[in-house]
Amino acid sequence: MNLVSKVLQQAVDEFAQLPGVGHKTAFRFVLHLLKKKPEELRKFGNTFLQLQEQVQYCKQCFNICDTDTCDVCSDQRRDRTTICVVEDIRDVVSIENTQQFKGLYHVLGGIISPLDGVGPSDLNIPLLMERLETGEVNEVIFALTTTMEGDTTNFYLSRQLQKYNVKLSTLARGVSIGGGLEYTDELTLGRSLLNRVPYENSLVKQ
Amino acid sequence: MNLVSKVLQQAVDEFAQLPGVGHKTAFRFVLHLLKKKPEELRKFGNTFLQLQEQVQYCKQCFNICDTDTCDVCSDQRRDRTTICVVEDIRDVVSIENTQQFKGLYHVLGGIISPLDGVGPSDLNIPLLMERLETGEVNEVIFALTTTMEGDTTNFYLSRQLQKYNVKLSTLARGVSIGGGLEYTDELTLGRSLLNRVPYENSLVKQ
Repeated sequence: MNLVSKVLQQAVDEFAQLPGVGHKTAFRFVLHLLKKKPEELRKFGNTFLQLQEQVQYCKQCFNICDTDTCDVCSDQRRDRTTICVVEDIRDVVSIENTQQFKGLYHVLGGIISPLDGVGPSDLNIPLLMERLETGEVNEVIFALTTTMEGDTTNFYLSRQLQKYNVKLSTLARGVSIGGGLEYTDELTLGRSLLNRVPYENSLVKQ
Repeated sequence: MNLVSKVLQQAVDEFAQLPGVGHKTAFRFVLHLLKKKPEELRKFGNTFLQLQEQVQYCKQCFNICDTDTCDVCSDQRRDRTTICVVEDIRDVVSIENTQQFKGLYHVLGGIISPLDGVGPSDLNIPLLMERLETGEVNEVIFALTTTMEGDTTNFYLSRQLQKYNVKLSTLARGVSIGGGLEYTDELTLGRSLLNRVPYENSLVKQ
């Protein structure tokens, strides 16, 4: 897309690098911003400068926060014996929204994916092992995506964590609640048959 | 969406106000930016501050540009007797890409839409009339969207421009080139029958 204005072109290019945004959508975004008041556009730009300056990662679990320890890690009511390992902070938000987990998190910052050039050394694994050294943790839950890369990371982690005396678990995989069997893929349906649970356990206790 | 970090929440909210972007997509955008180098994130923010400071509107046609007159208006090779009236700068880009139009533009900055609270006084109409006062212009082409609002604007403009001795025209409406008749809606197909052209005219002269 060739635009007459350089600043406009630059703004469009910046938006177009976002995931799933092409040049036409980026152009639409920029025109939307230009229709706003100058101070709102300034606020938009400043927000990202502030983000760059102020964003911090929790020194314990790598969650994003405004202080050096995140709200979850500093909350004394949370169960410190369970750590849930997730890929990124979006997963923390998703799990927090379920209100079913009272333990702590550990954000890996990615999963092992040789095709994308991500190896174990790019992930926050050493700090996870440091956290286990204390002996305070009883269980580590792997809550990574159920893809080849997620499974590889689970396997790698399980080998690394073998030496600690902790229980390792993964999220249950099965049919979605409210989902019809005819729309469930064979792999998931097959797995949910293999991993079937006693009927009493399927009743949610609140 | 409730996030633990305020700066993060602010960045997500800023993205979420863009057209077609919800909170989940906005969150994805922010995480994408956070994975980049700090200077790239700073550049992202600065781009929009610059946009706010440097963007200008052509004093003649309201096209967006870096100087006070846009490249189209200052290009002496363009035909100054024809003005194409468009809704916004995106339409200028679309028409320029066809390479079929050698005249000048006039960007209205919107179309008359009572439901959205946009009336004739919100559009750049007075300056269009000023441009016609000079008597230099022979033809005004209405290139607005073919919706009720576009047609209303065309009608309003045609009444306003009556007093000037200029030819008024609109874009031809008809079947898309390469489009099958079975996929064309009845209204468009009907109109293309009514406005049929002599066969010789349908051959594009390059």
